[in-house]
Amino acid sequence: MSRFISERYVNMAPYIPGEQPKDSHFIKLNANETACPPSPKVLEVLASSRMNNLGRYTDPSSMELKKAIAQNYNLKTDQIITGNGSDELLGYIFLTFFERSRICYPDITYGFYKTLADAFAIDQQEIPLKQDFHVDINAYIKSDRHIILANPNAPTGYVLPVSQIEKIVAAKPDRLVVIDEAYIDYGNESCIPLINKYDNLLVIHTMSKSRNLAGAHIGYCLGHKTLIKDLENMRGVLNPFNLSDINMAVGTAAIYDKDYLKSSIDAIIETRDYTTEALRKLDFYVLSSHTNFIFVSHPWLSAAEYNAQLRNLGILARHYNSPERIKNFLRITIGTKEEMAAVIAATKKILLKIAA
Amino acid sequence: MSRFISERYVNMAPYIPGEQPKDSHFIKLNANETACPPSPKVLEVLASSRMNNLGRYTDPSSMELKKAIAQNYNLKTDQIITGNGSDELLGYIFLTFFERSRICYPDITYGFYKTLADAFAIDQQEIPLKQDFHVDINAYIKSDRHIILANPNAPTGYVLPVSQIEKIVAAKPDRLVVIDEAYIDYGNESCIPLINKYDNLLVIHTMSKSRNLAGAHIGYCLGHKTLIKDLENMRGVLNPFNLSDINMAVGTAAIYDKDYLKSSIDAIIETRDYTTEALRKLDFYVLSSHTNFIFVSHPWLSAAEYNAQLRNLGILARHYNSPERIKNFLRITIGTKEEMAAVIAATKKILLKIAA
Repeated sequence: MSRFISERYVNMAPYIPGEQPKDSHFIKLNANETACPPSPKVLEVLASSRMNNLGRYTDPSSMELKKAIAQNYNLKTDQIITGNGSDELLGYIFLTFFERSRICYPDITYGFYKTLADAFAIDQQEIPLKQDFHVDINAYIKSDRHIILANPNAPTGYVLPVSQIEKIVAAKPDRLVVIDEAYIDYGNESCIPLINKYDNLLVIHTMSKSRNLAGAHIGYCLGHKTLIKDLENMRGVLNPFNLSDINMAVGTAAIYDKDYLKSSIDAIIETRDYTTEALRKLDFYVLSSHTNFIFVSHPWLSAAEYNAQLRNLGILARHYNSPERIKNFLRITIGTKEEMAAVIAATKKILLKIAA
Repeated sequence: MSRFISERYVNMAPYIPGEQPKDSHFIKLNANETACPPSPKVLEVLASSRMNNLGRYTDPSSMELKKAIAQNYNLKTDQIITGNGSDELLGYIFLTFFERSRICYPDITYGFYKTLADAFAIDQQEIPLKQDFHVDINAYIKSDRHIILANPNAPTGYVLPVSQIEKIVAAKPDRLVVIDEAYIDYGNESCIPLINKYDNLLVIHTMSKSRNLAGAHIGYCLGHKTLIKDLENMRGVLNPFNLSDINMAVGTAAIYDKDYLKSSIDAIIETRDYTTEALRKLDFYVLSSHTNFIFVSHPWLSAAEYNAQLRNLGILARHYNSPERIKNFLRITIGTKEEMAAVIAATKKILLKIAA
């Protein structure tokens, strides 16, 4: 730490992402990434003559991408802000709306919310998931705090139906509700249509999952135009050119290629079902996933041991040491069919070895 | 404005960048961009099989690019932070070090400093440039405030020698000095070597100018490892994956292609000299530029009129309405030789028309 740091940030702790090993021999199922390449349209634009023009700044309002998103979800462009990943937009939301307010979110969810809330000393409350790992709707309906929910939630993979989200949003109009739909495309219904009905709702999407673009890092946030205007002002203060022209081109190509999106999603869902079934046959408890990962536990193979053994066999998954009740679960990203077959084979080997 | 905005940000005003017209028929000399394409190595990597792998997150520590930068400037990687443009890094610096402190910067300089300082209610002092538009060194040596200086400065194009920067840095060790070297490559000496000697200095670079990559939006900041660690923590809180894998690949390729950098710079300097001479022959007062733009005034053609007439002839430049003493100057980016020949021709036409 330098002697120049603002007192306010002395204890700031950065977010710890899933390990990105230099060794490329691992089967990497620890960061909810995808093994699929991006849409061929994305690769096409990256190799196109548009890139000759990178000496120019892009349109700082990112209108090209906003138009594509607007058309895709039947919205207006002033209901959309785009960003360098959904994390950047979460940062804008926390600063703009939460910094001197009070928020709540589940005790088991995406760890980045706590990172942000801690860093900016936001009054935060963690509301425990119910014993069955589902979100406790009634607690959120009652709370006076602003709300942030990942839906589907991570690392559980469980989803709330739109009707339940609407109950929360409608209950108290002077409370902002942020729904992080990073994994919504994997067979779930989005609550985006609700933003035309409520002005206290923000919905966040990322292109890092279903659109196979984690390495591009593009996100967008949808909501009432007054909320979006506030966030646009924060963006215009912190980084007016936050979306590069490369990402404008990449994101736009990805949004328009709906067929490729569907085929990517279908492949993940099929492989998820295959993996779930295979692990259940090996006596695993597998939470019914609505995402591109599964959250699994075993009656006599501890999650920590399972994780370590998988790693020995060249497979990376993600294990959380806290809170206590998820210590015996392992989060495994759904990769390709071949990768998941390798997981099943490795798991059988591990179980046999321990049973021997 | 929504009813949810933090009271603190109610009056927040975003930065206004140079106009990005939809009409591509303009000769665009209003945003200090470059008309050159990026290095062929950049185009190569964008069209390479690396892009098949965009489904994966990149290394959040951006080590590949940091190694290239470290090698280029003879530094260690822990003296470097990379970002989504230098603006993003300025935002991190203002939050981390300036938010509850006091800063000063020239009254005529890059407007983004004031945007950030206003937004976060930072105690700020504008120190007037001397009458000859040069930075008033003694005022900075004396000040107790943290300092931010663009060197070369914009829109004047004047530069301070490293010896003068060092005097400022050395004068008061408990004051942070940030030198924004966006335009340093255009024939000037960088103060980067000073960061090995002083722990109260940060130097900011962008790839948007000399490396012809405004549309990629990559910046980096160099300084003592404790300062960089503080900034890395802020990055890890606000956007741990702020540098996309695309930009990691693009930035690394651009840094390694030193020959292309040199040829790009040489072309700009040659064209700048040509343009300066030609305008001086038309009785313009042209400040001796150390950047990729010139700042010009004319004895009987007002800058506002000149700007309007150029626009009529399809040429965009940038005119500032304040402060008063630069109202009669126009900032013109150095484009290609052909573009600048068009500026000269248009200027002759305008002068003849008004004289008639």
